[in-house]
This record gives sequence, structure tokens and C-alpha cells, in this order.
Amino acid sequence: MKYNYLNNLPLNEAKSKYYAHLKEVGFSGQSETVPVTDACGRVIKEAAYARICSPHYNASAMDGVAVKAEKTFTASERTPVTLTPDDYTVVDTGDPLPDNSDAVIMVEDLIEGENGNYEIISGVVPWQNVRQVGEDICMGDMIAPSGTVLTPSLCGALLAGGITEIEVIRKPLVGIIPTGDEIVLPTADPQKGDIIEFNSTVFKGMLGEINAKVKVYPITPDKKELIESAIKTALSECDIVLVSAGSSAGRDDYTAEIISLFGTVLVHGIAIKPGKPAVLGEALGKPVIGLPGYPVSAIVIMDEIVSEVVAMYYGKAKPLRKTVKAVLAKKIVSSLKYSEYVRVSLGRINGKLSAAPLARGAGVITSFTKADGVLIVPQNCEGFEAGEEVEIRLNKPLAEIENTLIVTGSHDPLIDEVSDFLARKGVPFRVCSTHVGSMGAVYAVRDGLAHMGGIHLLDTETGVYNKSYVEKYLPEGNAVTVKGVGRVQGLMVQKGNPLNIKEFRDIKNCRYVNRQRGAGTRILCDYLLEKNGLTPKEIDGYHNEEFTHTAVAALIAAGNADAGLGIYSAAKMYGLDFIPICNETYEFLIDKSYLDNPMVKAFLDVLYSEEFKARLAEMGGYV
Amino acid sequence: MKYNYLNNLPLNEAKSKYYAHLKEVGFSGQSETVPVTDACGRVIKEAAYARICSPHYNASAMDGVAVKAEKTFTASERTPVTLTPDDYTVVDTGDPLPDNSDAVIMVEDLIEGENGNYEIISGVVPWQNVRQVGEDICMGDMIAPSGTVLTPSLCGALLAGGITEIEVIRKPLVGIIPTGDEIVLPTADPQKGDIIEFNSTVFKGMLGEINAKVKVYPITPDKKELIESAIKTALSECDIVLVSAGSSAGRDDYTAEIISLFGTVLVHGIAIKPGKPAVLGEALGKPVIGLPGYPVSAIVIMDEIVSEVVAMYYGKAKPLRKTVKAVLAKKIVSSLKYSEYVRVSLGRINGKLSAAPLARGAGVITSFTKADGVLIVPQNCEGFEAGEEVEIRLNKPLAEIENTLIVTGSHDPLIDEVSDFLARKGVPFRVCSTHVGSMGAVYAVRDGLAHMGGIHLLDTETGVYNKSYVEKYLPEGNAVTVKGVGRVQGLMVQKGNPLNIKEFRDIKNCRYVNRQRGAGTRILCDYLLEKNGLTPKEIDGYHNEEFTHTAVAALIAAGNADAGLGIYSAAKMYGLDFIPICNETYEFLIDKSYLDNPMVKAFLDVLYSEEFKARLAEMGGYV
Repeated sequence: MKYNYLNNLPLNEAKSKYYAHLKEVGFSGQSETVPVTDACGRVIKEAAYARICSPHYNASAMDGVAVKAEKTFTASERTPVTLTPDDYTVVDTGDPLPDNSDAVIMVEDLIEGENGNYEIISGVVPWQNVRQVGEDICMGDMIAPSGTVLTPSLCGALLAGGITEIEVIRKPLVGIIPTGDEIVLPTADPQKGDIIEFNSTVFKGMLGEINAKVKVYPITPDKKELIESAIKTALSECDIVLVSAGSSAGRDDYTAEIISLFGTVLVHGIAIKPGKPAVLGEALGKPVIGLPGYPVSAIVIMDEIVSEVVAMYYGKAKPLRKTVKAVLAKKIVSSLKYSEYVRVSLGRINGKLSAAPLARGAGVITSFTKADGVLIVPQNCEGFEAGEEVEIRLNKPLAEIENTLIVTGSHDPLIDEVSDFLARKGVPFRVCSTHVGSMGAVYAVRDGLAHMGGIHLLDTETGVYNKSYVEKYLPEGNAVTVKGVGRVQGLMVQKGNPLNIKEFRDIKNCRYVNRQRGAGTRILCDYLLEKNGLTPKEIDGYHNEEFTHTAVAALIAAGNADAGLGIYSAAKMYGLDFIPICNETYEFLIDKSYLDNPMVKAFLDVLYSEEFKARLAEMGGYV
Repeated sequence: MKYNYLNNLPLNEAKSKYYAHLKEVGFSGQSETVPVTDACGRVIKEAAYARICSPHYNASAMDGVAVKAEKTFTASERTPVTLTPDDYTVVDTGDPLPDNSDAVIMVEDLIEGENGNYEIISGVVPWQNVRQVGEDICMGDMIAPSGTVLTPSLCGALLAGGITEIEVIRKPLVGIIPTGDEIVLPTADPQKGDIIEFNSTVFKGMLGEINAKVKVYPITPDKKELIESAIKTALSECDIVLVSAGSSAGRDDYTAEIISLFGTVLVHGIAIKPGKPAVLGEALGKPVIGLPGYPVSAIVIMDEIVSEVVAMYYGKAKPLRKTVKAVLAKKIVSSLKYSEYVRVSLGRINGKLSAAPLARGAGVITSFTKADGVLIVPQNCEGFEAGEEVEIRLNKPLAEIENTLIVTGSHDPLIDEVSDFLARKGVPFRVCSTHVGSMGAVYAVRDGLAHMGGIHLLDTETGVYNKSYVEKYLPEGNAVTVKGVGRVQGLMVQKGNPLNIKEFRDIKNCRYVNRQRGAGTRILCDYLLEKNGLTPKEIDGYHNEEFTHTAVAALIAAGNADAGLGIYSAAKMYGLDFIPICNETYEFLIDKSYLDNPMVKAFLDVLYSEEFKARLAEMGGYV
């Protein structure tokens, strides 16, 4: 098997080298002329100067009458001035001031007399209630410097300044070539081994957000000559070419090799994780970038490098990255060899912004959908301790992050269902739910990392749920439990129960899939093992840990395991057989200070509503 | 003259009344089904649940060989394990795991032996280097609740979860009807009395930013039957109708009257400034809103009300408004009758965010182009003092605002020209320049409100510029002046000099236009008056004050005045005659602590460059 190691160039060196080369070959955007009425969001090529003044004539600023101001100087309550029809002209807002007048009296200030006369009891000074020429914009003034992104009001100012057409940078066309023998177009019914091609959709969305147009080429199999021909076509049609997957150094990775046929590979392999196997190349004066096949790796390269290449096309500086300081909720260990991009969710609890690391796998696209930001662990840094203040690069507006109800703890699909009910009601906040197990919820509520946490913790001595745990871990009584749901726990087994599993002790003879430490279901498992005189060592798969009921069900349905503990609704979803073991009390642990929080209250209101009970009945397994 | 007074309903009451009515008539968006590959940025109608797991099969996470893990358990440096071709299958990243294997050994960990054998010196545990079914997404998991705005990564997650099409809220079509006899399509050559119709372009841009589509109807004159017919057409074609201008209570203001023909007018007149003359109506279950004709007034209504109506269409809460605390740079006095929206520019100087109020006229669109945010002075509040902490609603990302070089003081077009040179170099900051006169610059630098300020302050006793002022007002020596330019000041007079003005004293016999108090040019004017034995009272127009050289030139060119003091480049721009009076020293005042600031340095580097000298020569009047 051929295996070529990649370089491991630090990110900043990779960027400097690449951008310097692109600059040298003159990479930058061409311009085009567009009507200003359609130019919002576009980037102007040259500074724009007003061609006319705005207003371009002396305009009445009010509805009223235009007069010569000096006629009115003596007016007062005692000495009113009478204006005859010769003295005034009726004007509406925007009307040009008639010759020989230099001020306007508002209609509200006119007292009607006879024969079309008006009386006034206060005078006006020259140019009062008049928008003089150039009040807003003066001919020759610079309305916007080169490179300005046109906002709606800037487009208005350009038009007001007599500019009807403007030269803007043509939007770059970015060609995306998805490659791979195993890649298939989006489908709800992929075959084993098929990988659904969704990366190009993610890239297209990201590029749209930074003012680039996209052409997605057909999926190209891992054949050198086919990829070569696809890149050739894309180079002739696009300003920037992205080759998705095949950027590493495996036996089917041709991107780097092919780019060097057309031009130059500047970088192959960057010391970042995820994102290492990236190829930064140039051909015919255009950037050609090989993106890793793993979605998260590719997103990191898109965000770090492709976005800056697009900025360079527009002649602009690197995009500004908004960062915030946050307290790290969990320790992170990172390799010294790479700079690591850890996705985090953020929450503002009691004024303190905390960052919880999300799944770190390069294939886990949901770690990006949930990510509020990214913590970049520098190269040569071993990581950060829980409680340390760290800098987070934001993916979402802080205002959105701060309007978030954070529900953590034991996994139950009902939390997502409540979120959906709330969303449909149009509440002004979102719900962020994370699955850290019941014990995770206890710690999170104690440490101020969540507003509320779902728990179902069996006291194996008393058979009572939750109470003793809360008393032990939150002895100061700051937190209370509120009613959640009763639910059925049981063994999920393959459809038709081929191994004829009847009770918990039967897991001894099958491949089990467990929940993570700290999960209420794990505690239940350990309790049941002990009760049945079994030890973890006797259970095949005891150390195979998953974080959710659905993940356990999925592995059983896939045949990776034969049985696992979980709730009925998960078994139902996957068409598994279900052997009920016990009913349990699933409650929410809430710091007392949040009982009046409008988000918490809205959450519980939904949970206790009749409407929601109907939804629970539909899901099944709630008692 | 007919005049109907408007209501003056407090904003919140107006909103409650209007939104409650829209809710009652069932105003909300219909949905449509789109491919997920094109759904980025769209709002989903219902919660989206994964149809398949991702991965949907057990996939190799690495290039390497798939094995049965138990075969490898004993491997160590001392006791290597040999894998024969029967023991392994070569797999690439993403390949399905062959039956009878449950782990992958990375290619880097394989030692090639003979006959296709491999040796390994460390074992793998079950499922190591395997992406198990559902690692990322489990079938049945909620990927996003109802009403979610699809981000690029969410589109990826939907596709990964087997969702290829999705129901999204159809984008609302907003019809805009510009009305008014005096309104003309954008042109560089409007006639006197013509008002360029740019409001619809501003609205279109704003609506595009909040996911609405726009149809702009032809300009409709102020004829009741024509406006009626335009509204009828728009109501049949659009989801929301905006009528631009004619919303007040003047003789040509028909909007409210016509809306009530088709439906209901809920509100006419809101206690906000600018924005008061707005009409909030409903017809055929659709919002019909009359917007004020003044652009700034209309923008306030767009931002406060139309944006919330669009959110309501999408079934979402009101848009979140990002606010920051800032220190007010200048006192604001506001009417008790209205809630007032004061546009401000923001700057971060020495860590302190300060807010400088911009022009308050309702017709000044440039007050919005320059605005970083809006200070809302509540109804029944008289205003705020300079130095008070106020809350600013942001119009721009804070990161952009914080990367701003603030140059204030005396007006000279060279500042905009330097900004443009910097923008063309792609510097990672913007320049914000405000015209507050030379004395304004001295105070702003002293009070930490600007990085640098342009000054040309003549000491009338010594004839030396700037020095004595800096010593007097900044006695602690914290600020220094650095070289700017020499420039010619003189009298700008109408082309051909019809009044035969020869020297400064001749302004006695003409209509003068002055600069504002604190401007260096005003100080020069007062000095010249005294020198010529003249008093302000003798000068017609002494109190007619403008803030820039171009504004003075514009008024002379328009015939509003006969003469004014200013710099040569402004006179040249307007084709005016110019009578030189003196050469002056225009310098930049900078707090010492900013001399090393990279933005300040970049500004001065451009100013002193040969390239820029050529530009100054082109503009003329610099010596």
C-alpha cells in the first residue's frame, strides 16, 4: 500500500506562503457595472463621489407657505403680521422654493384671515424650514471609499448623489468538484458503503454568505484522468476551484498530484486538526484548493482559508472574527502537534458565559450545527483546564447565544419536542439541549452551567429517584427538582427477539451496548447487574458506550449489538422489540433562582400542557 | 388648506394594537417544498427528524486494514501479532466494514511482512477506528425544530440524515409603491423640484437582508384613483404592501384614506421622531403600511415595524436587537412628545466606547450611511448629557466598529482621499471621519473621543497656526501636532465674479455664507473681519452656518449666497471663482499614546507618500 506522509506546516506559515504566491500571480477580482438600484451588498471598485447635491434645489421642508423671511421679522403675539396672497406661495414638503422667497412657515402656524390673507404671530429667519441645496450630500463629496460593501442606506445615498450605475467587483464564481467512488447524490435510501455528498451544499451555503457564487460539478470518481478533466473544465469556467476529498495521501488521493499538472502546489498538509489534509494550489492564476473529505475538516479549511481567499479576490483584508471570552466548562486535552479547532456551545448563565466542548470527530457535522463558536487550541499547547478563561471565535451572533435556555442532562427526546412546541409558539429564545447524563446535569446545575437538567437517578437502597442525589451533591439546597415525566425503561433487542432475551440477566449471553458513565440508565444497568449477581467483566460490550437512547437503538438495529437498556420511544422508532424492566421518574433539576426565569417557565408550561401530553402519548412509553 | 392632525400613539401601543390585529386575521406565511441543496438561509416549517442514521453503516474511519479486534489483543512490541491475508481486508476511509470485522488498524501502524502478511505491535479494541452506525446522527433524532433558519451545516446535517427535500416558509413578496407627483426615477440630471426616488432601493436592500423578496411598482402620482388601483394590484400580487410617501395628513396624503377603502387603518401617527407620519393598516388579511416620504423616517418604520411584520410572517419572535453601552460624546436635547431615534457613530478609544450623535434631519440619508447605531431617547425624556452612559442599538457588527480609525476635526476632502488609499491597500480597518471643526478636534483629542484630529487654528496675535491653542487647551502635553498639508484659503464667489469681489472687506456688500463656530475657517473669518474693521452685524448671512467647504461652495453655486471662505479644491469642484486670501498650516493633533497605533501610522504613511502628493496636486490648492 502506497502511503505518502503529508507536511505539517503551521497554519500561519501555510497562509503566508499561499497568499504571497496568489498576490504574486495577480489574483484579484474583475469588475462590472450594475444599476445602483440592484447594488445592495455589492463591493464597489472605486471611491464614489456625489455627482449632484442632495437636495439639488432649495426645497420646502414642510407643508406651508414660502415667504421672504424679512417680511416676518416683526411678528409677535402683540404685533401679528398679515401675509397677503402676494406675500406667500403655498408649498408642500419637497416643493422648490419660489424665487424671492427664502423661508417657509408651517401650515400649523398659519391663522386664516379674509381674502386669502394669513396672520402669523412669530417670524421665521432666512432658510428656516428649507432644505438648502446640499443639506444631505454635496456634489464632489466622497460617498464611499473603494472596496465599500454597499448597505441599503449607502445605495440610497448614491442615488441621492446622482449616481445611477456603479462599478462593483464581479462576484467570484467558485467551482466545487465532489470526488470519490463512494460518493452519491443526496438520497433517503443510500446503499451500504454509499456516502451522501452533502459537503458541496455546506460549502455553497458558506460561500453564499461571503458573496460568492457557486457551481457544483457532477460527482467525479477517483480516476486520475476524470479528476484531471473536471479540474480543467472548472479552471476554464470559475475564479476559484475547490476539489472536495482526495486531498490526503492515500492510494486514491490525487488532488495534489493533479493540481501540480496545471500549476503549483504550495502547501500539502497543515498543522491543524481537523483540517490537516488540505492542498493549497494555484493554476492559471486561480486558487485551486483540495479540501479534506471529512465535513468538519473541510469546514475548518473553508472558514480559515477559502474565506480569506475570497476576501483577497475582493481586495479586502481578512474577515474580522468576532471573539468572546468564556469559561471552559470541561477540560480539553489536545495534541502538541496541531492547532486544534474545538467546537463549543456557549451559554450565558448568571451573567457568566461558559463554553462546553462538543464532539470532536472530524466526521460529526452535527458538532458544527450545534456549535456557537470554536475554541482554537494553539499548536504546542496541551489544552485547557475546566474553569479556565478561554477565547472563543463566534459562529453565531452573541445576542442569539445569550437568548438561550440551556437544558442539559439525561437524554430524552421530549426535550427536543418541547423546543419544537416553543419554536412554534414563536418564543423569543431558543433551547440548547446537550446530553451529558443525569450526573452531568447535577454537576452542571451545581456549577451554573445550565438553567435546568433532566435527571433520573435511582437510589438503589431506597428505590426513590433523584432525591438522595440532589441532597448529596447540592447540600446547600439551592436547587429543586420539578415534575418531569414517568417513563418505562427496558431492554431493546432486535426485532423478533432472535436471542430470546426475557429478562435483564440474559444480557450475559449477548453483545450488549451500554450508556456512558454518569447516565441514569448506566446507573440502572449497574444496579441491575449487581441485583442479578453479574459483574461488568461478564458482559460483552459493557465498555461500548453511547450517549443517547437513540444511539443505543441504532447500534442494535444495525446489528453491532444485541441488547441495550433504553426507553420505549427509542425502541419504537427503530422497530426494535422492547422488554420493560421498570418505570422511572424523570425530573428536572433547577436552581431556585431560575424558577421565575421566563424561559424556564415557558419550557415547563409546554411540558405540563394538555397539547404536549398528547404528543407524549404519540411517542409512547411515558406513564 | 386642509390639515388633519395625526395621532401620536406611543410606539409600543401602536405595535401591540397592530400585531394583535394581524394575528387575529391570521397573517402568516405559507410554505413550499425545496431541495435541501438549495435551502440554506430558508426557514423550516416543521421540525426535521433524521430519516436515516449517519453513518448508515459501520464505516472505516481510516485508511488501513479491517480485522476482528480479538485477533489483535495480545500484540505488543515483544509479542507482535502477524496478520495473514485471511485475517484482514484492506479498507479506505469511508469503506464499509466487512462482515466478521469490528475494528480497523491504521496503515501507519502496519509493518509489511512477506506473502502479504502484516505485523502489528499494538492491538485494537472492538470498534476502534470505526465510525459506527449513528455516530453523527441517529434516525429519528430531531435535527432542527420548527422555524429554524437553515445554516450551511444544518443543510449538511439534513442531507446526512437522509432528508433531500424540505418544507420551508415561502419568502414573503413585499410590494413597494412609490407615490408622489414630484418623484422621478434615479437620474444624474434631475430638474428643479424633482425628487429622486431612492427610498424603494433602500427598502429593497433592507428587506433582502431579512429574507423577503421585493417587487417595486412604477411611481404613482398623487391621484387618489391611481394610488387606489396600484394598492389593489399590489394586494393581489404580494404578501405585504408598502406605500411610500403620502402617509402624513397634508393635502396630497391619501394613503390612510385609501387603505380604509380596502380594509382597516389601525394606526395613523406614532409618537416617534423621525417616523411619526406612518400608517399601519390591513386589507385582505395582508399588512398594508404607509411609510413616510422622508428617507430617515421611513427607515425607522422599516426597522421598527416592517421587520417585525416580516418576522411575524415567518412565525418568529421579533428580531433580536444587539445593543451596547457607550458614553455619549455630546449632549442631546429631545422633545418630550416623541421617542426620538438619534443616529450615532461609535468609536472605541482607549477601551472606552463613545457615541457621537449625527445629523438629526429626517431627510439626511447620510446620517444612516454613517450611523453605527441608534440611540433611542424615550418619550417623556428630555435627552442625555454629554458623558452619560447610554444604550445604543447597533447597525453594524461591533468588530467592525472597533476596527475603526476615528479622524475628526476640520473638514478637508484629503481625509476621505486618504481613507480611499487605505481601502485600496486592503488595510484591516476603516476610517470614520466627522466634521466638527478645528476646536472640536482639540476637545475630541483631549477627551479621548478621536484618535486624531485635523486642525488649522490661527493665532491672530502671532500669526502661527495651532501651537498656542494646543498649549492652552492641552497644557499637560499629552498631544502633539504632526505635519499635515499647507493649503490656500480664500473667498469662493460665483463664476465670473459678478459682484466684482476683490478682497475680504467686499463681503460687506454681498450675501455671505459662514462656517460653524469652532471651525478654523470661522476663526479666520472673525480675524479678517476685525482686521478690516467690520462687525458680524454688518455681514448679511454671518449666521448662515455650514459644516464643510463643499457645503459652502454648494450654496454659492446654487445662488443661496454670494461668497464664503473656503479652500481652493472646493471652489474648483463647483466651478467657482476663487480669491486667495492666505496660506495656512493644516496639521493633525494626536494623543502621544497613539503615535504608535498601527491605524494612525498607516494613515500618516499614506499622507506622506509620493503617490498621495500626486493626488493632492490633482485636487489643487495644497502648497
